[in-house]
Amino acid sequence: MKYLEDLYVGERFLSDTYQLTEENIIAFAEHFDPQPFHLDHEQAKETFFEGLAASGWHTGAVTMRLMAQTLPLATGVIGGGVDLRWLSPARPGDLLHIEIEIRALTESRSKPDRGTASIFVETKNQHGEVRQTIETRLLVFKRPG
Amino acid sequence: MKYLEDLYVGERFLSDTYQLTEENIIAFAEHFDPQPFHLDHEQAKETFFEGLAASGWHTGAVTMRLMAQTLPLATGVIGGGVDLRWLSPARPGDLLHIEIEIRALTESRSKPDRGTASIFVETKNQHGEVRQTIETRLLVFKRPG
Repeated sequence: MKYLEDLYVGERFLSDTYQLTEENIIAFAEHFDPQPFHLDHEQAKETFFEGLAASGWHTGAVTMRLMAQTLPLATGVIGGGVDLRWLSPARPGDLLHIEIEIRALTESRSKPDRGTASIFVETKNQHGEVRQTIETRLLVFKRPG
Repeated sequence: MKYLEDLYVGERFLSDTYQLTEENIIAFAEHFDPQPFHLDHEQAKETFFEGLAASGWHTGAVTMRLMAQTLPLATGVIGGGVDLRWLSPARPGDLLHIEIEIRALTESRSKPDRGTASIFVETKNQHGEVRQTIETRLLVFKRPG
């Protein structure tokens, strides 16, 4: 497991995959984004999305799962916010993975035990189509002692 | 239901509430953010969060649910991204609601049937503590015909 001093700018991490299906898209939407284009194959055809599309928040939550599985940070994946862009709607059948790049590493000026890692995260399907990007800064602790 | 020409800058919308519990915080985290501070009351005490905290993505997904329930947009709540800040961790017992304000309305230069609404969304608990803010631009269609 890694601490701040174990990371480097330009370091990349590649995740495992997550399968989006009509079933898990609809199950997420029923609870968190109950709109026709996320809930019903037929009704979705008549909407802006022209077919069933995953809630962007589902894509985001899957991305968080893959980040938690992929980033080997000793004290966890902790962020204070994200700048998130949905470049294209995720669809049933998408086999999603994420690609993470460390863009900057900064030591805290006030707290000597920690710093931040600025990362860029792309969420892509099996055809390389980018469904989502995230820019965020993670809180990363230094090695204790 | 409203179209672009029915909205005005400064217009505000107040949502219903959503109850966060230890059970739904853990259920979300098991699937989408499996980290000790989101999964286990006891283990979470030893972490940065000093107790069980909701995944920020859970707070975000709940916010989306409340937006879908609250915003009376005829063609749905559709956004291309969000700038999201978690100001404090949401906790078991938080009764969340959202407050939405329209900050700007813009007509599309290329597509005469639509425009965007820039909104600011605060997610607060029953004590008025702000857990999350979102800035986003929604795609809003004009009244047909």
